[in-house]
Amino acid sequence: MDRRTLLTQFSQQVWSEGNIDACDSYLGESYFIHHDPGDPWNHRQLSRAEFKERVRLSRAPFPDQRFELQEVLADGSAVAATWLWTGTHAGDFPGFPASVEQIKMSGATVYYFDGDRIVGHWQIADRLSVLQQLQSTI
Amino acid sequence: MDRRTLLTQFSQQVWSEGNIDACDSYLGESYFIHHDPGDPWNHRQLSRAEFKERVRLSRAPFPDQRFELQEVLADGSAVAATWLWTGTHAGDFPGFPASVEQIKMSGATVYYFDGDRIVGHWQIADRLSVLQQLQSTI
Repeated sequence: MDRRTLLTQFSQQVWSEGNIDACDSYLGESYFIHHDPGDPWNHRQLSRAEFKERVRLSRAPFPDQRFELQEVLADGSAVAATWLWTGTHAGDFPGFPASVEQIKMSGATVYYFDGDRIVGHWQIADRLSVLQQLQSTI
Repeated sequence: MDRRTLLTQFSQQVWSEGNIDACDSYLGESYFIHHDPGDPWNHRQLSRAEFKERVRLSRAPFPDQRFELQEVLADGSAVAATWLWTGTHAGDFPGFPASVEQIKMSGATVYYFDGDRIVGHWQIADRLSVLQQLQSTI
């Protein structure tokens, strides 16, 4: 399966559907977060178990979250994706109790592969837009 | 010249060095900004003259700005780049008078080509980080 398809399936199954055990099919033994401002795991090397915990904790405030990939580019061992994200703010987020409002976000990620396994990423999300939406809920 | 090289040269000459007339060598007759939250020209179709004005106005508060490309991926007629940006806040920015502080930002952009000409982009920058840095200067 080509890397573009692997990345698309990983995003859908793990991040959108919350099928956390699917990480076993897509991730390498360890995963490095090269750049991800605002992510609590930024600059960390994660074991697969730690990555699964990151997904679980990240999805908890927005359990119905969906990533809609816009553009997916594959070049060498990297895959870049631009995405739109939506999620209902159904769980507490630090400083922002659950509001049941729909929150939107956009971002772009470069994923690094080792063979057919994802082993890291470099990501930017439009955090300011999320903060503004959360502030309007309180 | 391949699109990866064209994009790298465009970023360097136009955005980093401020050689605005170099737009004539890289851009199509019109340029569409598909997605660029916070950019005053977001969602607009720009003539080349309007694009040049956008560069001039965008660079004015940070005249020594530099984009350091991190990863450049080419696939089909699109090129994705992740980047780190630095600029001295030497001119006024709405709400933030010139502070002469160095500001940093990171982001990712997908550029769309028509042949060997750049005709649009989809971009995310970490605006929250910039806002926090500017707020700390006043």
